[in-house]
Amino acid sequence: IAEEKGGEVNESGPGVTQGVDGLKISMENHVYRIEFNRPKKFNALTFDMYNGIIKALEEASANKETKFVVFSGAGQYYCSGNDLSNFEKAAKIGKEKLADEARELFQRFVAAFIDFDKPIIGLINGPAVGISVTLLPLFNIVWASDSATFNTPFVAIAQSAEGTSTYTFPYLMGYAKASEFLLFGRKLTAEEACERNLVNEVFPATTFLEECNRRIAEYAKLPPEALKVNKQVLRDVHRDTLHKVNKHESAVLRDRWVSKECEEALMAFMLRKKK
Amino acid sequence: IAEEKGGEVNESGPGVTQGVDGLKISMENHVYRIEFNRPKKFNALTFDMYNGIIKALEEASANKETKFVVFSGAGQYYCSGNDLSNFEKAAKIGKEKLADEARELFQRFVAAFIDFDKPIIGLINGPAVGISVTLLPLFNIVWASDSATFNTPFVAIAQSAEGTSTYTFPYLMGYAKASEFLLFGRKLTAEEACERNLVNEVFPATTFLEECNRRIAEYAKLPPEALKVNKQVLRDVHRDTLHKVNKHESAVLRDRWVSKECEEALMAFMLRKKK
Amino acid sequence: IAEEKGGEVNESGPGVTQGVDGLKISMENHVYRIEFNRPKKFNALTFDMYNGIIKALEEASANKETKFVVFSGAGQYYCSGNDLSNFEKAAKIGKEKLADEARELFQRFVAAFIDFDKPIIGLINGPAVGISVTLLPLFNIVWASDSATFNTPFVAIAQSAEGTSTYTFPYLMGYAKASEFLLFGRKLTAEEACERNLVNEVFPATTFLEECNRRIAEYAKLPPEALKVNKQVLRDVHRDTLHKVNKHESAVLRDRWVSKECEEALMAFMLRKKK
Repeated sequence: IAEEKGGEVNESGPGVTQGVDGLKISMENHVYRIEFNRPKKFNALTFDMYNGIIKALEEASANKETKFVVFSGAGQYYCSGNDLSNFEKAAKIGKEKLADEARELFQRFVAAFIDFDKPIIGLINGPAVGISVTLLPLFNIVWASDSATFNTPFVAIAQSAEGTSTYTFPYLMGYAKASEFLLFGRKLTAEEACERNLVNEVFPATTFLEECNRRIAEYAKLPPEALKVNKQVLRDVHRDTLHKVNKHESAVLRDRWVSKECEEALMAFMLRKKK
Repeated sequence: IAEEKGGEVNESGPGVTQGVDGLKISMENHVYRIEFNRPKKFNALTFDMYNGIIKALEEASANKETKFVVFSGAGQYYCSGNDLSNFEKAAKIGKEKLADEARELFQRFVAAFIDFDKPIIGLINGPAVGISVTLLPLFNIVWASDSATFNTPFVAIAQSAEGTSTYTFPYLMGYAKASEFLLFGRKLTAEEACERNLVNEVFPATTFLEECNRRIAEYAKLPPEALKVNKQVLRDVHRDTLHKVNKHESAVLRDRWVSKECEEALMAFMLRKKK
Repeated sequence: IAEEKGGEVNESGPGVTQGVDGLKISMENHVYRIEFNRPKKFNALTFDMYNGIIKALEEASANKETKFVVFSGAGQYYCSGNDLSNFEKAAKIGKEKLADEARELFQRFVAAFIDFDKPIIGLINGPAVGISVTLLPLFNIVWASDSATFNTPFVAIAQSAEGTSTYTFPYLMGYAKASEFLLFGRKLTAEEACERNLVNEVFPATTFLEECNRRIAEYAKLPPEALKVNKQVLRDVHRDTLHKVNKHESAVLRDRWVSKECEEALMAFMLRKKK
């Protein structure tokens, strides 16, 4: 069905990216949609998906018909974050080399969001974890179903905050609430995320997509140049700092990945999962 | 009546600016008041009014009796923003030349707020639109009547955000809520504006002025130097960035003004108005 | 009892600072606690206490067992801010010399919080005033009893805002609410402070310490390196600006201290107190 739908709507502008496992991409009525589509794994992000999203954003930028991009998740989850099985590759290529590769990919992935030149709308249909949460302040609208939750358990698995969240989160909710969330891993309900400015508005799960799509159709009537210019002028003032922060966070995270503490925390996490 | 009242209270310090069409300016009990006074045009801002306000702020800064400045609007509106008929002048002097003139004026107008050295209080008695909204985060207190609304429909008329709002709004409400407001033109009620930190407190329209004036009289007892020094130290850390942002926004807006998209959007807007 | 308790828990790691009048310091289960302990003076801060806290933070940083620091106040108050009797020393050593000394101490005190490398949790058990409030945005979690209030009456005594609050407060609550608080001295209830992001959560006074200690025990299980690294990466992006702001605020405050306006305001304050 995914491919069929992609096929149906794929007529205007240059073709949309197809065939990336875990992503469903479509384009219709000026709206470019990227759906995390790995529901059995709660839409956890593989290295292929990171690369696929970077490519899709390039395409959406180049596509003259595209006024904005919409992210959402298939199934119950929005996105459970980085797939921890990405780290299993370490057995093959070595921990240090994998950490270097992952660092380069993460930094490039986040940079693609910093530099994307059209608005981004996020439809948070269910639980969001890790990097799928930290990226949200780089979006321009975030709507959440009341079944959504927001969680960044970085410290529990001895990792560190990314997605430029160390810079963007204090803007949303001040330092103390940002620290409680990023540092102490407090999970937020959709309502709490809205109070803390991570989310614009919360809708009942039953009418969530309908409400969002109605508004998206409205917004798709706005003049495209003005949308793009305003998106960029809002970003310009923070662009250099965001890139600097992204680089710094990526370096810190790389050091975490090769730390003893992180190794032990990941092992404990895997054991708990298997129980 | 305006002139009479101006005359009555015009006794202490140097004379207050008089005779600017669309502004009523007075000074009493250490409080310098600037009222948008063009109620038939919903207090829309003409080029004369921009220049008059710049001059008034200079005067309020120089006046040793003035502890702070209070802005408000006459009639039902606070201010409906830039008077779009300002653009009619284009027929005479040419679109490019008008855009250059307007850019210079806008940038100077916003800079006057960035550099003003005493506190500013805004009494938002009714609907506020465009630049009268984007300037509010440069104020030190904003009180709203429950009949006030807040609206920045820049994209709908293919223009772009100004007043340093691309920098200041994310401080108030985070990126997503700032984007929804500045980019997608969502209109806010007074209560919503208060939740989003654009407004300090909302009062019923019936007691609005009374409540505000009671507090203003209280604040007018505070020591003047300490007020001025604290206002400045709060501004100093952002001053350079604010000027940089103002310059950048003004340049972007100038390009919008001469764009085909903006011309078409303004024509459509005028046509809707005439219907 | 204080000394006994300090003695009981003082066994792991290097010894904790003892014998500073007005401070009770202890260390237990990875948590380093600094209690303002001058309840008869509402825990007002003496020069000895500022120096004692700087030393304690150095110790908590060096102590490998310490995962984070917890601040609280003994008795009804959290902390009533700078002890104004610190200024009585002026009679002896001269106003200018005292102002220089106090400036150096204040700047060093605030810098110790900017640079502290582990998380800080604040338990605001009662009224908090002045510098004990302005420092809170440098903390990582702030929990308040519903009997807490927050007050920065700088302008009323002709002084100026410190603790990097001119930079940090607009992040929490936007410019207007920050100005109302820092400039016009509006006192906040615990609930208002929570809405304005100064406080993470409010608990009833009766269960306050119990609730906090339950959470602290939970957080004390987190991996120490990850806590420290995440705390630092959250601070890094603002560190240079915070030091610059601290220096500027300290210089401005020093000028306030030697001003005629401040002298008169302090005299009036003392007279009101004696009545």
